[in-house]
Parts: sequence; structure tokens; C-alpha cells
Amino acid sequence: MISDPASKYPRFSPVPLRDRQWPNAQITKPPIWMSTDLRDGNQSLIDPMSIATKLRFFEELVAIGFKEIEVGFPSASETDFNFVRKLIEESRIPDDVTIEVLTQAREDLIEKTIASVKGAKQVILHVYNPLSPQFRRIVYNTDRAGVKRIAVDATTICKARCAAQPETQWTYQYSPECFSSTEIEFAKDVCDAVVAAWSPAAHEKVILNLPATVEMSTPNTYADQIEWMHRNLAQRENIILSVHPHNDRGTAVAAAELAIMAGADRVEGCLFGNGERTGNVDLVTLALNLYSQGIHPALDFSDIDRVKRLVEECNQLPVHPRHPYAGELVYTAFSGSHQDAIKKGFAVQSTTGFWQVPYLPIDPADVNRSYDAVVRVNSQSGKGGVSYLLQQAEGFELPRKLQMEFSRIVQTVSDNTGKEVSSADIVALFKHEYLEAQIPLQVQGCKYRDSDADCVNIEVSVCNAESGERAVLSGSGNGPVDAAAQAFMDHCGQPLFVVDYHEHAVGAGSNSAAMCYMEVKLGNHTVFGVGRDGNISTAAIKALACALNRARSNGLDINANNATSNSAAMVPDDRSKTA
Amino acid sequence: MISDPASKYPRFSPVPLRDRQWPNAQITKPPIWMSTDLRDGNQSLIDPMSIATKLRFFEELVAIGFKEIEVGFPSASETDFNFVRKLIEESRIPDDVTIEVLTQAREDLIEKTIASVKGAKQVILHVYNPLSPQFRRIVYNTDRAGVKRIAVDATTICKARCAAQPETQWTYQYSPECFSSTEIEFAKDVCDAVVAAWSPAAHEKVILNLPATVEMSTPNTYADQIEWMHRNLAQRENIILSVHPHNDRGTAVAAAELAIMAGADRVEGCLFGNGERTGNVDLVTLALNLYSQGIHPALDFSDIDRVKRLVEECNQLPVHPRHPYAGELVYTAFSGSHQDAIKKGFAVQSTTGFWQVPYLPIDPADVNRSYDAVVRVNSQSGKGGVSYLLQQAEGFELPRKLQMEFSRIVQTVSDNTGKEVSSADIVALFKHEYLEAQIPLQVQGCKYRDSDADCVNIEVSVCNAESGERAVLSGSGNGPVDAAAQAFMDHCGQPLFVVDYHEHAVGAGSNSAAMCYMEVKLGNHTVFGVGRDGNISTAAIKALACALNRARSNGLDINANNATSNSAAMVPDDRSKTA
Repeated sequence: MISDPASKYPRFSPVPLRDRQWPNAQITKPPIWMSTDLRDGNQSLIDPMSIATKLRFFEELVAIGFKEIEVGFPSASETDFNFVRKLIEESRIPDDVTIEVLTQAREDLIEKTIASVKGAKQVILHVYNPLSPQFRRIVYNTDRAGVKRIAVDATTICKARCAAQPETQWTYQYSPECFSSTEIEFAKDVCDAVVAAWSPAAHEKVILNLPATVEMSTPNTYADQIEWMHRNLAQRENIILSVHPHNDRGTAVAAAELAIMAGADRVEGCLFGNGERTGNVDLVTLALNLYSQGIHPALDFSDIDRVKRLVEECNQLPVHPRHPYAGELVYTAFSGSHQDAIKKGFAVQSTTGFWQVPYLPIDPADVNRSYDAVVRVNSQSGKGGVSYLLQQAEGFELPRKLQMEFSRIVQTVSDNTGKEVSSADIVALFKHEYLEAQIPLQVQGCKYRDSDADCVNIEVSVCNAESGERAVLSGSGNGPVDAAAQAFMDHCGQPLFVVDYHEHAVGAGSNSAAMCYMEVKLGNHTVFGVGRDGNISTAAIKALACALNRARSNGLDINANNATSNSAAMVPDDRSKTA
Repeated sequence: MISDPASKYPRFSPVPLRDRQWPNAQITKPPIWMSTDLRDGNQSLIDPMSIATKLRFFEELVAIGFKEIEVGFPSASETDFNFVRKLIEESRIPDDVTIEVLTQAREDLIEKTIASVKGAKQVILHVYNPLSPQFRRIVYNTDRAGVKRIAVDATTICKARCAAQPETQWTYQYSPECFSSTEIEFAKDVCDAVVAAWSPAAHEKVILNLPATVEMSTPNTYADQIEWMHRNLAQRENIILSVHPHNDRGTAVAAAELAIMAGADRVEGCLFGNGERTGNVDLVTLALNLYSQGIHPALDFSDIDRVKRLVEECNQLPVHPRHPYAGELVYTAFSGSHQDAIKKGFAVQSTTGFWQVPYLPIDPADVNRSYDAVVRVNSQSGKGGVSYLLQQAEGFELPRKLQMEFSRIVQTVSDNTGKEVSSADIVALFKHEYLEAQIPLQVQGCKYRDSDADCVNIEVSVCNAESGERAVLSGSGNGPVDAAAQAFMDHCGQPLFVVDYHEHAVGAGSNSAAMCYMEVKLGNHTVFGVGRDGNISTAAIKALACALNRARSNGLDINANNATSNSAAMVPDDRSKTA
């Protein structure tokens, strides 16, 4: 058993904030997005990206619509330095995109960082240092004043260095690292001092980025911290309040959302949540969460698989099959009741204003995905999925009871094999079970003699597919189905009653055919038959024959063989005898 | 660009709950856990589990400590039915474990379900039907009264059927499917009626399970719904309030946590978040989130990789490399500053009561993982990782400035190749750069003549590794290092000053050796040398020679060749000359 955690792990102490406002808030517009895929994401990869790969990723981020992109840590990596130079020297940064560069709060590194972006039109200069008690004590062996001095001194140095490079429009960003595990009054004190040292204005705001460097507790506690800062920071009007949540507890998306409700203006993260350990907050999920609530995220994920492929290739890490909005399986329904509900939802969708297909939070088409491409049928699936697939693949519209009968057949196969049954498997199974059920009775054709609207006299040419013997069966009724039923009943030696009957066209024009689904009662047994023919009457007659054949192959003694051998009604195929 | 969502997606309308209490709550104990891996998880798999696989999974769930396990949907799947029979007939259910079976609210399915568990000691009978307006309108074409009647009638049927099978101790569970998108007063109305129809008692509670069948909005809205129900349900004292969050918006863990704060007693989910689409809430993350807050989760994940392997094999789905607590990379630090902080955290860990290693929310050892096994070094890494690896692999404890010097060497290699540098690469690189830097000056041995504690006279036997020529260098000083420095300075034609000096033992007993790290100033240049020898003095002398050799190979004109050729102090190796 796992050891006693109470003696090993301290509980997180939340900010006291009894009058919090964020739980009543709703998100009404997208935050400012900042992608740190090329910095925080990249530095956590097993194989960091090459300059060529970074460029490819950068161009995708621009295409998605990011206006702020952290492109690297130039003072820590020659690759990053050279990448930044390449972007600038080759004029690859669109006018409406601002690059961001990270540096530690040290003069030599700041200098190298500023040198790396020389010639850029606009730059966010991002300086960080850790403030938390853990870092002060364990890593730096210093006190509050020590880490505050580092932050303020670095800001002062940056201000002077930026002023010396006035061709660039600078935005200053400060991150108190480990914000969420720092005493909050002290974090505010340092942030206020940094802001004062930079002296921003409402039209030239400073970015204060408050990271959950390690996710410490339930996401509401981060929201409380952000609201506390939002309400207590000096010069709030000159600040863009930014969040940078990590996902150690699996709640980074929630933390970012609640933080936006609590007053954050901006979110830093990565596509699909890349980053150290469990990663940064996933900007794809955050953006599409807004989308599903009727808010345009100002990012374009209308071809999610293209983005996913690029990110997987650049990061050499997979996107999980169940990843929200993008995973391979997230528009797949396995459960039969889910499939049935989704089918009904699609059917009514055109008649409603809002999207409301059960189990599909967004229309897969909005991200260039599809539901029907990923329906899978297995032993847990019911009728909805099977019939939906048949309809998609072949245009067959099975009546409800036939859906249930055929689903049991599919399920038996699936249960026996323990494997998924593919769309092609289902079509083949359906054709084998119904359309190809021509043993022994194969319908060859039919003629109508002396018929009118009220009385139809039919002659059905049949062949015994086993013996090759041919015959003509005769019957009369108030329509072709009735007459054909009479003809088959007379010759199979069983009471035969058509319980239900559905027919529809598949295809169009000269290639169209009729599909007929017929529920037949033979003695005490009910069985379905299906027929397809260019002639709607012949389709029905084929369906009847199919039902008889299936009943026989299911063990029902309907003496079907008689139909082409011993029956009194048996006639040679010369059509010399009429009914 | 993505289409306008405002006209397509309705915003979620939260429950009005201005006096909510949950944001002030903290989780103080684990919820009742219910694993639905074998039901909800299994029915969403591409290849559902075989009976043998289900059994293996069941036994792992029992070993982890689950006391409630949903074992299947026996009325929907023959495999599930047979699996339940096998568990019961082979007495595979421990006395303290209760199996749960799901059924739709239909009499024939309820009967089959109850038949499936005949002979079980205790069973949770789980009935569900959808209540939401979307389902009433689109899927069932019915009204509120219609779906309420289904729920109450099913409960009445269950009560009668369970009474007829009294050898089993029954717990009834009702799930209003799509609870989170149902009008909340109506959900309460149906739940109250179901509870009344079952008529539980405080010692025989009914389970009301309130699913977020599809995750609808930010997780606080689900918490509001749960708190509303918690405060408004009739017979709350006779109810176990359960939640079943799905992860469509990537916030299921958060939703479950906030719901527990809001009054939920029980959580249904799957290991690593398996389930339809984006999956159910991940019980591993939820449990270890408690653990990291000092609360024993009552589940045992002390060998997380064993659990992960089993789940991956049974589900045929991967656990993502960044999955909280279990992913391949979550105890890996790539960033140099992270590695440095982690190293310092480990160093002080023994002196503190609570776990406080930076960037590691829990001790990897608690889940049978390790930090050192997964350190990777790449162009983004700094000194911490490199030196940590050297220490782990070889026991070398590099002084801080040498760490920085060597890190730059590693980084150059990493930048040039663009690939991760492995632990073995780092060791080889260190040995090549320092311990094998014996050209031209190779130390063969040394002798001390007429020495005492205050004055050491040394003779160093050296060999020119290029020419093969041997010599003895002599020097004096207040100790062996000082004397050897004098000897080398006399013979290399440069001012030589030992700036810093660290030595430590590696290994133990007769196999132990001394490692010496020497920072040497030669003229205006500083260079490190490293020596290893069984004799601590010889190790230092080797370090000095190493520094000279490295300075020369770095282009410094120290005339090192003189040391074995032209120097005035050059002597034959016959030790005939004394200092």
C-alpha cells in the first residue's frame, strides 16, 4: 500500500478570498493568446527542434492566428539565437505578429537576448526569476529582498538597454516564477516594484505573467490567486494580466478558464499541451472550448488534423486518441444507444438553428473531421451504428425492426471474433444475409396477366438455385405484393402473412433501384426479407423469396423446396399454363 | 477561418446559485471510488476486452483497492453476461468488493441483468435513462412525464425483482443521463421520485449518480449543479451522491474535484481516463492529486508503471507521455535551471519533513518511478542535469564552475547534432575532455624528498605522450599541490596559480579513488583540470597536468612541450637529481 502522504506532503494553503467574484463570471471573449511552443514546448522535447522545424512550426502558428509567439530562449541556446536572427533577417515576421524572447534576470543574458532581436519591429522582452520560499531557501539561499532586487534590477537594465535600441517597439513582460506557490502579498510587492521600474502607460502596457509553474491545488485556488492580484495590483490599468498554467494535476485547462473569469487578459500555453513534465495548458482545447460556447476564439482550427500532424511531427510526441477536439476517437461513438441518438440528432439538425446532436459537443465538420468516417461497430454497439453505416455506404434505409434483427447478427459476429466489425464487413454481412439469400428460391422474373387496379394476377418465374430446375408460381391479390404472397404461400405449404413493408429508391436516374424490406409471418415465425430490383414490384417479390429462403435456412420447415419441385402449383417454365 | 460559432452553438446556462459554498471548501478525504473500466471504458474500445482480459483487469482493480467495480452491461453483451457469471460462479469477487451492473430502464433488460448476477453476495443495480430536453425531443419524442415515468417504473420493477432474489444484498443506483444538460428542478423531481419509489434508509442508501454525460461548460458550473442538488434533494441523508464526469472540454478532473467540494460522496471514472470520445474522468490523477495534498486516496498506485502496462494492454490504447503522475516524461526535467533546482532539492530533502523538491509535485519513488532514470540532456539543458548525470553514473561531484564549463561543452555537442545527449555520451565526453587529456604531459608517478608538514619537495615523473620522452619535474611548496604547481610552473614557462581545488573519494575500500578538480589560472586564462588516482596527491598532480594539457589544446601558448624537452628543469628519469 502507498505510504502515508500526510507526513510527506503539505496541503496547499489557498488565498483567503471570501468575497470572490469569479464563480459568477462567464467568459465572453477570447483572451490574448501567446504560444510558447517554440520556447517552453521546445525546451521540453527529447530532441529539440532544428531551425528548419522551428520555422515550419512558426509559420503554422501564424496561419492559426497567433499574434504573440515566444520564439526562443536566445541566451541559452545557439539554435534559438540563430532562429531569431533568421526570422528577422529574412523578414519572416508578419507586421501584426509580435515575437517574444525569454531571458533570465541577469545582465549578460539580457544583453545577449536584446542583441538577438536587433532589427525586429516589435518584441516582447520576457524576464523571469523565481520568488517562492522553496526557491529562495533551497536554490538561491537568499531572502525576499534578494529575489526582489534581482527582479527590479533586471527591469532597470532592460529599460536602459531597450531605450538604446529604439527602432524596436518593446513590450516588457515579467514572470514571477512559481507565482502560485509564492506568498501572495510578496508576489504583489515584487510585481508592483517591477511595474514601477518599467513605468508603463495605459497605451503601452506591461505584461505581468503569473505562472502556475507547478500546479499546486484544485483550479479554483489559482483563480482565487489571480482574482486577488487583479484586485490588488497597483497600476492595474497599465497591466496586461497573463497566466501560464502547467498541468501537473491535470487541471490546467480548468485553471486557465477560471483564471480568465477571475480577471486574466492573456494565456500562455502550447498546442495540445506540450511542455515540461505534464505540459503547459493546451491552447487548442481552450480555444475550442470557447468555440463550443458560441464565442469565436480568434484562432483558426478549422483543419485540426493538419495542425495535429504538424505538431506531432515537430514535437515527435503523439496527440492522444482521446484528446479533446483532436483525438482520433473523439468523434467516434461505440455504444449503440449513443449511435442511435447521434443518428437522430443528425436527422433533425437541419431543422434547428443551434447545433444539438447528442454526444457531439461540436460539429466535427467545423474542424474538418467527420462522424461517419469513424463509426465503429463492435459487440457493444446497437442498431443505430449499424444502420447508419449501411445508409452511408449503400443508401439502405432499414426499418426499425430490421435494424434490430440485423444488429443482433452483427453483434454475434463481433462477439464471436472479439474484434471491431468494419463498415465494409457490415455491408458484406448484410448482402450475404439478405440480398444473396437466393437458395433455394431464386426469382428470375414475373408477369402480370389480366390485371387491373383492384386485382392483380401474377406469375413469378423462379429457379431452384440448388437443382437448377425452373418453375412459374401463380397468385392473385389486390396488388403485386398481395398476389406474390399468395403465389408463394400456395407453393411453400405454410400460412404466409406480410406484416410490414418498406420500399425506397437507391441511386438516381437510369441506375436507380428499389430496395424492399418485407417483414413476413410464416406460421408463428416472423422473418425479414430484402429485395433489390430496378422494378419496384420485382424488388418486393425478391424480398418475399428472400424471407422464405431465410426462414428455411433458419430451420423453419416451410417446405420451400416444394416451390420448384413437388408443389401442386408447379408448372414448367414455358408459361403455357395461366392462373 | 473558422465559421461564426455564435449562430451555431448555444452558450451553457448555469444554475443560479449566488450563495454557493463549494469555493470555500477543501477536500479532506477520498470519495467512494467506482471503476467503470469494465463497462463504460470497455464499451468505448475499438476491440472490447475478452473475458480473460476483463478478468485480468478486474483482479488489478481489486489489487488497487477498488471496493465498487462496474463489471458490465450484461443485457447488452453476451460477453459481459458470461463474464459476470464467471466472476460469481468461480467465487472471484472478494467479500469486501461490490460488483455493479448497468441496465437501461426496460423490464426485459432489467430481468436479464438481475438474472446475470444471481448468486452474488452484494450488487449495485445501476439503472439509467436520459432526461435532457435534447433527448426528450430528438431521441424519444416524449415529454417530462414520459421520461419520469420510465425512471420510476423501472425503479418499481427493480424493487420487486430484487425482493425476489433476497440472497443478494442490493444497492440501487439511478443515473439521470445527461444530468448536466437537464433542467435542474426537473432532474431533482425525477431523482426524488426514484428515491421515493425505492424507499431507502440511512443504513441502506440509494446511489444517485449525476453524470456530465457530455461536459457542457467550465467545471465550476458542474460544481454549482452538484451543490444545488446536494442542498435540494429530498432524503439527502439516505442518498450517496455520485458524479460521473466526462472529459469533452478537458476539465473532467477539475469538475470531479469541485463536485466533491460541492457535496459529492462518490466518483465514477476509469483508470487514465478511458471512455467514450474524450473519456471519463481519470481516477489515477484524481487519486494522486489527493495524495499530493497529504490525503491518503485509499487506492494503491505505488507501482504506477505496472498499472499503466496492464491498462495499455487491456485497452489497446496508450497512456500519453505527459499524462499526470504516470506519463513517460513527467518526472523528466529538460531545462537546465529546472535540473539545477531539482538537484538542490534532492540534496536538502533529507533535512526537511515535507517533500519539497522543486518541479516534482510528488516523490517519483512513491509510484515506483525515478527522476534520475529519465534525465535527458539536450541543447536546452544547463549544468544541473549534466552534473547530476555524472554524479549518478560515475559518482563525480563537479564544483559549480566546472559544471558550467562542462555544460557548455555538452551543449555544443547537442547544438551541433540537434539530438539528445545520453548519460553514456556525457560520461564519455567528460572522460575524453578531462581524464584522458594526457597529451603531451602524462604523469607517471611522483616522489617526495626531505619533506615535512610545512615544506614539501616533490619530483613528478612525466612522459611526453607524443615523443615518448620521459622526465622528472621538481618543485617545492607548503603542500603537495603547491609543490607540484611550482614544478609545473617552472617547466611550462607561464605563471601558474591554483584558483580552486576540490577533491573527493569515489568508490569504497580498496577500489576507492580520489577525484581532483583543479581550477588553474595560466597567465590571463582560467582552465580546469581533473585527475583521478588511488593517491590523493597524485590525483591532484594529474589534475594539474590535465589543466596544462587542456590549456595547450585550447590554443594557449604555454610551451607545454618544454616540460619534457627544453626546460632547464628537465632531468633524466633516473631520479639521480634531487631538488
